[in-house]
Amino acid sequence: MIRWNNDYNHGAHPAILQAFADTNDSSYEGYGLDEWCRKAAGEIRKHLGGVDADIHFMLGGTQVNYTMIAAALRPYQGIICADSGHIQVHETGAVENTGHKIHVVPGVDGKITAAAVEKEAESYRTSDVPEHVTQPKMVFLSFPSEYGTIYTKEELSGISWVCREYGLYLMVDGARMGYGLGAEGNDVTLADIAAAADIFYIGGTKCGAMMGEAVVIVNEELKDHFRNYMKQNGGLLAKGWVLGLQFYTLFKDGTYFAITEQADRYAMQIRQAFAEKGIPSYIESPTNQQFVLLTEEQKEKLAKNHIFENQFWTEDGRFCVRFCTSWSTKEEEVETLLRDIREL
Amino acid sequence: MIRWNNDYNHGAHPAILQAFADTNDSSYEGYGLDEWCRKAAGEIRKHLGGVDADIHFMLGGTQVNYTMIAAALRPYQGIICADSGHIQVHETGAVENTGHKIHVVPGVDGKITAAAVEKEAESYRTSDVPEHVTQPKMVFLSFPSEYGTIYTKEELSGISWVCREYGLYLMVDGARMGYGLGAEGNDVTLADIAAAADIFYIGGTKCGAMMGEAVVIVNEELKDHFRNYMKQNGGLLAKGWVLGLQFYTLFKDGTYFAITEQADRYAMQIRQAFAEKGIPSYIESPTNQQFVLLTEEQKEKLAKNHIFENQFWTEDGRFCVRFCTSWSTKEEEVETLLRDIREL
Amino acid sequence: MIRWNNDYNHGAHPAILQAFADTNDSSYEGYGLDEWCRKAAGEIRKHLGGVDADIHFMLGGTQVNYTMIAAALRPYQGIICADSGHIQVHETGAVENTGHKIHVVPGVDGKITAAAVEKEAESYRTSDVPEHVTQPKMVFLSFPSEYGTIYTKEELSGISWVCREYGLYLMVDGARMGYGLGAEGNDVTLADIAAAADIFYIGGTKCGAMMGEAVVIVNEELKDHFRNYMKQNGGLLAKGWVLGLQFYTLFKDGTYFAITEQADRYAMQIRQAFAEKGIPSYIESPTNQQFVLLTEEQKEKLAKNHIFENQFWTEDGRFCVRFCTSWSTKEEEVETLLRDIREL
Amino acid sequence: MIRWNNDYNHGAHPAILQAFADTNDSSYEGYGLDEWCRKAAGEIRKHLGGVDADIHFMLGGTQVNYTMIAAALRPYQGIICADSGHIQVHETGAVENTGHKIHVVPGVDGKITAAAVEKEAESYRTSDVPEHVTQPKMVFLSFPSEYGTIYTKEELSGISWVCREYGLYLMVDGARMGYGLGAEGNDVTLADIAAAADIFYIGGTKCGAMMGEAVVIVNEELKDHFRNYMKQNGGLLAKGWVLGLQFYTLFKDGTYFAITEQADRYAMQIRQAFAEKGIPSYIESPTNQQFVLLTEEQKEKLAKNHIFENQFWTEDGRFCVRFCTSWSTKEEEVETLLRDIREL
Repeated sequence: MIRWNNDYNHGAHPAILQAFADTNDSSYEGYGLDEWCRKAAGEIRKHLGGVDADIHFMLGGTQVNYTMIAAALRPYQGIICADSGHIQVHETGAVENTGHKIHVVPGVDGKITAAAVEKEAESYRTSDVPEHVTQPKMVFLSFPSEYGTIYTKEELSGISWVCREYGLYLMVDGARMGYGLGAEGNDVTLADIAAAADIFYIGGTKCGAMMGEAVVIVNEELKDHFRNYMKQNGGLLAKGWVLGLQFYTLFKDGTYFAITEQADRYAMQIRQAFAEKGIPSYIESPTNQQFVLLTEEQKEKLAKNHIFENQFWTEDGRFCVRFCTSWSTKEEEVETLLRDIREL
Repeated sequence: MIRWNNDYNHGAHPAILQAFADTNDSSYEGYGLDEWCRKAAGEIRKHLGGVDADIHFMLGGTQVNYTMIAAALRPYQGIICADSGHIQVHETGAVENTGHKIHVVPGVDGKITAAAVEKEAESYRTSDVPEHVTQPKMVFLSFPSEYGTIYTKEELSGISWVCREYGLYLMVDGARMGYGLGAEGNDVTLADIAAAADIFYIGGTKCGAMMGEAVVIVNEELKDHFRNYMKQNGGLLAKGWVLGLQFYTLFKDGTYFAITEQADRYAMQIRQAFAEKGIPSYIESPTNQQFVLLTEEQKEKLAKNHIFENQFWTEDGRFCVRFCTSWSTKEEEVETLLRDIREL
Repeated sequence: MIRWNNDYNHGAHPAILQAFADTNDSSYEGYGLDEWCRKAAGEIRKHLGGVDADIHFMLGGTQVNYTMIAAALRPYQGIICADSGHIQVHETGAVENTGHKIHVVPGVDGKITAAAVEKEAESYRTSDVPEHVTQPKMVFLSFPSEYGTIYTKEELSGISWVCREYGLYLMVDGARMGYGLGAEGNDVTLADIAAAADIFYIGGTKCGAMMGEAVVIVNEELKDHFRNYMKQNGGLLAKGWVLGLQFYTLFKDGTYFAITEQADRYAMQIRQAFAEKGIPSYIESPTNQQFVLLTEEQKEKLAKNHIFENQFWTEDGRFCVRFCTSWSTKEEEVETLLRDIREL
Repeated sequence: MIRWNNDYNHGAHPAILQAFADTNDSSYEGYGLDEWCRKAAGEIRKHLGGVDADIHFMLGGTQVNYTMIAAALRPYQGIICADSGHIQVHETGAVENTGHKIHVVPGVDGKITAAAVEKEAESYRTSDVPEHVTQPKMVFLSFPSEYGTIYTKEELSGISWVCREYGLYLMVDGARMGYGLGAEGNDVTLADIAAAADIFYIGGTKCGAMMGEAVVIVNEELKDHFRNYMKQNGGLLAKGWVLGLQFYTLFKDGTYFAITEQADRYAMQIRQAFAEKGIPSYIESPTNQQFVLLTEEQKEKLAKNHIFENQFWTEDGRFCVRFCTSWSTKEEEVETLLRDIREL
């Protein structure tokens, strides 16, 4: 059985295991104050277009998201998020647990739009009763989105522009950042994200690391005492260097970008195979997550050799399922899947 | 100028002021452990159909709402609410500030529906990832609704039935309870609400008291340590007897019901006057809040003698405004408004 | 039976009831945006020594305290408080419920000291691990203290000086402010408190009002969006003018100061009577709260005509009890108590 | 330079790295629903004396501690902790950030006592104003303590007995569990802890794992929806199996116990060397953490070859410093330190 159900079902890129072995006899400072975290931050900064960012290493997207939000907002402020945003739908109310309201707006293809942000912000700006409502002060988006779609550079700068107009922080969840950057047709770079966002993170857990995410803080206002927020929220790890070491390993020679781009290419082959078979996508994703609509028969046939994730049933009786490639996907696995799709 | 902008712009029913004067030389136990709170609870219980309820006196709808929710829910649980519900739209994120997510569902005429509650609860029940989402555990509704509409006894019992099916608490915000009970065509009694709900409150602030609301806890599970929650949330008042005294005064002879019913009758006269003039209502409300759609000219004319509340602009350029009658509304004020409407 | 158990067992000063009666036919803007709140703020400002303060009206000391703290602190910051401070001992964890740690330091005679504040702040400043601890950012004190003692002007300015040295906000709980200001030997004025503190409140509930407290915000940083915090924490009352009216009534002619000073004088008579009888005070309080140590026999004798509050048992078998005078205390009540003390 | 500053400065036991390598081509279920977590739980359960515990894998002591507390307590409840307890002194207010008060009681040799717990619980039980205070509902202790001391079986059962008397949950922070269990003279087993505690964790991060802690829930009441709490608090990791795999590796053959016991033996050699030199310990610790009092000269000499952690200055001008051995300590490192101590 081959697992396509998600992009976090394998351990780590071999270079990471090698780095663990190479450093296992050495000792390091605790709590992220070590040389690997410094070197990893240095490698990441090379991609940020000269922005003077603070970089911290944490672990797990949910933790990163709510910690960034808790650090940025005052109790009467909230965060704008598309109805499909991860913080709204799949984090067990972690944001509300920190005391903040999510202002939910309709998404388009899994993405938030500048227009929706503007409407929500304008609604607050012109409110007759601003003391009776929460102030939207931050905008959440995922790059790529939870449905694998990506923002164009123009879309991103449009959202960023609205944020600056209304004094909103822009926060980017980059759990799958590599798969977004490596997508065919993508015109967004890490430097573009650093220019557009006030705070964002680059996911490692789903992109080749064993575990870990890199938080990048661009806006000075959000840098203050961030390590206290990390500690308070369980994210200042005693062995922080283990995270720094992984990011250094993935970034020092471009491995992070190469392995995720390869996963995207595999995903495009799979998408094409489904399309050639006349099997529709639920959404057109250029990244490693593919959402396709299968009949029950097709689903059962594929389930013989493959594990994939059920999303929901459509009204016409088909199943929306997710196939993920990842940095760990092997060519022979793709071949097997392509063959099985063709034989449907 | 006559104020119709809300139902909390006057002090208190004269009987309340008299009660203050009559008791001002007496002294009482603090924190609601006094004879007036006991007597007031006794009077209220007469209307609850024999339900063995705990009754507490607090002050202010927002405080009551979030305290009831904080007392009922565990951190991973949320509350289902219509998109027009007060806790969602006008309480500055007070519920989220206690750490809980609001599950927003579409309302119909300002009311939540049993079908919407069921859909949300069923969605959780059948979730593949129940650890990744909040558990809806409570349902919020206002009687009457924020738009002045009321639930029929059938609607209320339908919602209550779904709640019991899914193990949800039903909570009723009765800030304007009197106006709902006194509405023409209403078939719901306080006893019906006590039978349907697990916890609710009877508003005094907008219904003749100077200030104060009576919290009624029906479900045993929600009674535990409620006074601790009151204190922790700023709602256990040193001079609690001042609230008890007011509720005793309003309930001992039915004043609470009489004065709000009268306000509803005035509202019906106003509604009819608008209708006769061809001025449409935004929503058909049988209670003291009337939402009508005025042209700019009509609005300006009425604004010469009357103060009312702007709600929003409609797409065709009219203004949705709110006229509220209240327990303090005088016949001559109604006459003046009716005359001015007729002269539009 | 005469109640001396606390200073919140009577309704309101007669001038307040008169003000209620005088205004009951008038209507006012909601949520504290009315003329009475403005006029009351104006009267209070006359006592603030020219400080440009924001003034808001809320209700209940616990609510005021935690709202002020929630508005001032970021999640990683805490508040320094004496071990006898109200927020630490008698508010059901309301401060922690807003997410903040209380840094408890030893009090002296119920008061916090500049030295204790400095030690705690210095401990943080010199910490090797500032990310692993909360930052003390605010200091809490009550004037008068929970044991009725008062700070001298020198003590107050000493604490204030330390606060400024370390960038700490100073917050004063003035639930019984009038009794402190009116005490024999007191050399502190409201203007001194406004000069020393960043935020404080002047209690009405225990000082002649039916209910209500006036929040005075001196520091610009703490003024921002305070009304949102009030609303979110249940303290932005629909009928805010009822609070403003009471403060206007008490302040417009000095009633607030006169009635509390009179209560202090009565308390001194009671203290003297106990002293003449050889009954020791637990603590030397110059204000309306007197804590005396009674034998069981003395306690029982006094309990025949008087209600007072048990505090605790001493190790030598006596009872520490509290006798409070208040604005509502009558001369004949004092005479009766003095007589009964003399007859012990 | 040899690092003795803490027990988390090296990567992982070689068997862990081997396990990573062995499994890197395999794929697993996400979120801890995999075979390694199941197998690790099975190995751990063998040590629990037959208790039917739920076992979850999380990462980082702070996160584990506040998640366990958030899952156990209602908002009006608090946790009793010694003044030296980790949640009180070094977690940046994480517990208060979840809304709960810590009831601080004096510790003895870094340990909480049954008497102190009983006094605090009894104080609440006999309170005249139970609504005005938080209810102590849980007791926190670390095994071994933050100062390396250990509880005897009698002490532990004494505390547990008081907890049961008063309906308190007992929670044990086992960040350094192995070092406690392996200490010379220790008479406590994991089974004893499982019998005494309602919930505890077995630390991996400091005891040979790369990262990870095993949460053991004994009390049925605390098992409910724990995975939701994990997710909400950022502790339900996508690659949960990485944690399970490590615990399986350490527990399947007793490695966890062997490597920590060895570290304790090294610590005893170091302790003895200091003692022979007449250098006093700050506290008598039988585990891997040794706190000794050095003169400035001694400190400087040792600092030439060794890194250790400053704790504080004593009043007589000496330095309390911490030397930690760990699972990664090598015999030659110990020899070097012993030599340098002898040469002081």
